[in-house]
Amino acid sequence: MTTKPSPQIWLYDTTLRDGTQREGLSVSIEDKLRIAKRLDQLGVPFIEGGWPGANPKDVQFFWQLQEDPLKQSEIVAFCSTRRPNTTAAAEPMLQAILTAGTRWVTIFGKSWDLHVTASLKTSLEENLAMIRDTVEYFCSQGRRVIYDAEHWFDGYKHNLDYALQTLEAAIAGGAEWLVLCDTNGGTLPQEVSQSVQAVNSHLSLVVGQESMTIPQIGIHTHNDSDMAVANALAAVMAGARMVQGTINGYGERCGNANLCSLIPNLQLKLGYSCIGEHQLNQLTEVSRFVSEVVNLAPDEHAPFVGRSAFAHKGGIHVSAVERNPLTYEHIQPEQVGNHRRIVISEQSGLSNVLAKARTFGIELDKQTPEARQILQRLKDLESQGYQFEAAEASFALLMYEALGGRQQFFEIKGFQVHCDLVEGKETNNALATVKVAVSGKNILEAAEGNGPVAALDAALRKALVNFYPQLATFELTDYKVRIIDGHTGTAAKTRVLAESGNGYQRWTTVGVSTNILAASYQAVVEGLEYGLLLHSQAETALKVSS
Amino acid sequence: MTTKPSPQIWLYDTTLRDGTQREGLSVSIEDKLRIAKRLDQLGVPFIEGGWPGANPKDVQFFWQLQEDPLKQSEIVAFCSTRRPNTTAAAEPMLQAILTAGTRWVTIFGKSWDLHVTASLKTSLEENLAMIRDTVEYFCSQGRRVIYDAEHWFDGYKHNLDYALQTLEAAIAGGAEWLVLCDTNGGTLPQEVSQSVQAVNSHLSLVVGQESMTIPQIGIHTHNDSDMAVANALAAVMAGARMVQGTINGYGERCGNANLCSLIPNLQLKLGYSCIGEHQLNQLTEVSRFVSEVVNLAPDEHAPFVGRSAFAHKGGIHVSAVERNPLTYEHIQPEQVGNHRRIVISEQSGLSNVLAKARTFGIELDKQTPEARQILQRLKDLESQGYQFEAAEASFALLMYEALGGRQQFFEIKGFQVHCDLVEGKETNNALATVKVAVSGKNILEAAEGNGPVAALDAALRKALVNFYPQLATFELTDYKVRIIDGHTGTAAKTRVLAESGNGYQRWTTVGVSTNILAASYQAVVEGLEYGLLLHSQAETALKVSS
Repeated sequence: MTTKPSPQIWLYDTTLRDGTQREGLSVSIEDKLRIAKRLDQLGVPFIEGGWPGANPKDVQFFWQLQEDPLKQSEIVAFCSTRRPNTTAAAEPMLQAILTAGTRWVTIFGKSWDLHVTASLKTSLEENLAMIRDTVEYFCSQGRRVIYDAEHWFDGYKHNLDYALQTLEAAIAGGAEWLVLCDTNGGTLPQEVSQSVQAVNSHLSLVVGQESMTIPQIGIHTHNDSDMAVANALAAVMAGARMVQGTINGYGERCGNANLCSLIPNLQLKLGYSCIGEHQLNQLTEVSRFVSEVVNLAPDEHAPFVGRSAFAHKGGIHVSAVERNPLTYEHIQPEQVGNHRRIVISEQSGLSNVLAKARTFGIELDKQTPEARQILQRLKDLESQGYQFEAAEASFALLMYEALGGRQQFFEIKGFQVHCDLVEGKETNNALATVKVAVSGKNILEAAEGNGPVAALDAALRKALVNFYPQLATFELTDYKVRIIDGHTGTAAKTRVLAESGNGYQRWTTVGVSTNILAASYQAVVEGLEYGLLLHSQAETALKVSS
Repeated sequence: MTTKPSPQIWLYDTTLRDGTQREGLSVSIEDKLRIAKRLDQLGVPFIEGGWPGANPKDVQFFWQLQEDPLKQSEIVAFCSTRRPNTTAAAEPMLQAILTAGTRWVTIFGKSWDLHVTASLKTSLEENLAMIRDTVEYFCSQGRRVIYDAEHWFDGYKHNLDYALQTLEAAIAGGAEWLVLCDTNGGTLPQEVSQSVQAVNSHLSLVVGQESMTIPQIGIHTHNDSDMAVANALAAVMAGARMVQGTINGYGERCGNANLCSLIPNLQLKLGYSCIGEHQLNQLTEVSRFVSEVVNLAPDEHAPFVGRSAFAHKGGIHVSAVERNPLTYEHIQPEQVGNHRRIVISEQSGLSNVLAKARTFGIELDKQTPEARQILQRLKDLESQGYQFEAAEASFALLMYEALGGRQQFFEIKGFQVHCDLVEGKETNNALATVKVAVSGKNILEAAEGNGPVAALDAALRKALVNFYPQLATFELTDYKVRIIDGHTGTAAKTRVLAESGNGYQRWTTVGVSTNILAASYQAVVEGLEYGLLLHSQAETALKVSS
């Protein structure tokens, strides 16, 4: 076998900018930082972080990354060209980009004459000046520039000459990449392919003659025609070398090109090189991590990374796939960190458990009964509908229990909730009573709340705060509910994720039950327990160090 | 403008067979019949109904369609070739197909030598005989045959000669269509394109010489590489004339080619003809109808038919799209029955309301204040998270109310639920009390149940049954819960759909609230009210006719 080096494709993730345009998706600064760090580990060379200046959250995000920078990835600030009839240096919007302190900046400009006259309401000439001036200004300030040609494919169809002039303006300004954007998502693969080829040959002819460096081509696609991934592949096969997309295909309307599909297609099927092999096999975990952080149900049927992507049912099929996986699987699921799933049984790997234990500072030995016990318990709970990807505090409690280190701070003896559903009564319509034992003493308490969960939480704190005054600093910061299986009627299971905080740390716990109140109660109780555990660990650490 | 007739592409829907392989999707015979009728109206020429004999549900389904046949579509029975070393006539499995009584039958056979030897454990020769013999047998019984070449693209890559021989066997048997299946979903568009061309030229050369009719080519794709739709389009552009797919792309693992994306791409972008213009604009409604019937949350970001597919946010963007929709929309949303959505306001059309009223036998006039009032109420409720696609009984009550014809059978004065969450107690852990007024008299009742909803339902019936003995025949037949907006913490809204029945009719009602118990109570109460209304209408009709 000869080993020819694979051509490199540069991945450019825009989950944190274009991805957050998805209806129903909102993220905190904390969420954005967690995702950026995870993408850094995945080995994505460019991460678009947002448009600093357009909203205060993004300004803060870039500042926090200056203090605690990413290890491998370039974080990129995004903004438009300057406004008409001014200069880039005089444009305050562009100053905000400079203070973001990134090495790379992405500038988007108009390629389509209709947009210049109808949206920007300026002349075609001025638009070219805006592109060139803005790119040039950032280069003069020591930034490297990626130019996003917005609405490229519409511009290309409607006024090819002008569209090409906008690219030449970006090149003249010093842009190192020209990214062709299918902003409306209406283009089909053969058009993309043709357009990329045409741009490449135009640039070699015209720009090459002026002996300037010809920038490389990138592609940015949307999924309005269900073609985002196919279009990006078509562009690469026609010569594009940068691919923009988002994790799980999040984005406005129908979303952006899904990097979770693009990366394995490029790397495993077409022989391009994007990320390392040991990064590729993190892909499934990254997909789920991002969906949990933004609180969207993971797409279980997503290509490559979905829970059902390598699920097999039924007689002959299963025995055939066991004899020879090639017969029913287009790739090895492990290459993307996924796994084959046969019938209903869960296939959690021991190595995953070991890896997760390590994140809590616990080194487990594969051979020990404790490790196997944790794995078994995990499988049992997952088959009941529990998910621990985002509920690390519950996972930690499970591990401590198996290792014999789970402290019992309190014991719940009973719990009652009473709801009074008189139409129009929206406040304090729920009453909870709780019976708890602490160090052998029984306490009975009651509290009201807006809805049953708020009442449960209040009653429990009231019962415990005399024993554990630190509870006063805990709060329930987020509460997420998901119906796991909607088809079983009244027996449908509910999964509750509860996020708690103590002012400087946050942790998430999980509960599952056919009764939404019981699921909520599990998650809330574990949230309080884990908070007490953190406090007790901090006190021990303090004693040891003093 | 010259009008050239558009080449016809034959749609073949397999939602009811391959679609139901999706993990988590299950359908009753009633569900299958409703979907088949809707696809018939949509104008899909072929509807694959299932594999009669493989399960009793499918046998029943085909029998019911013999009694109440579809109007336009051909319903197709699906099965494999006969087993090795027997004859088609002696194979009981094939007899079940004949009793299904369809004009068309789809037979699938093995194209890939590896599958013949590894899965079927027979010789390559015998596999060819199985294909030819099975197709021939059905033709001799007056059936028209579509041949599905399973694992075509793998067979093509591994043993081209043999793969082509399997197609020749199907032709020799009398198949009218040869459908190339990407069963594992691993193929990319350029390979599909190349393969379709190769098959077409091989058939013209070899089969054409023997002066047999050359069947047309079809394509069946799966989405494991996120390429199902792109692959189907590539096949059509290379000469395929039948496209197999499912509504919403439902199917095993990552799903099948999504007809809701394929149809508009083929018809609006590539100029092929699939269904009528007035059928194309039912596409969004069909997509939502099917998702509601199978109780899966509709994909709000689905291309063409998703609720967010033409949603626009933010300043400049919105004003631009209002001035010129072309600037931000790749097609006119109305062409597929969808609509532009700006900011948060709902865009329910008056004509939709009129059409729905007609299904309840009510003719509304567009100009009347009642029609506008219904529309306004509908918009208000939808903006609160209500959905009436599947809750037609609640919609009917809303209309009767606006028209002044909503009878008051009872009035709820108050409702209380009490849950006792002692660990391990799973039965009768909920107690509900209800206060209801009927004809000026107050009734107070209490009942227990497994969970709060069952208790609510029981208490209400107990209170009302003395006044309305017909309530004894009503039952809660299905109960579906969905969290509408998971990101608002404890304020997340819940939508409940309750299906009720009286033994010969079924109806569905909806409730929405931040409190799951309040949402359930709304849906349950409306379910009882609608049942009483049906009963009273039936009595009135009886009096009038006697």
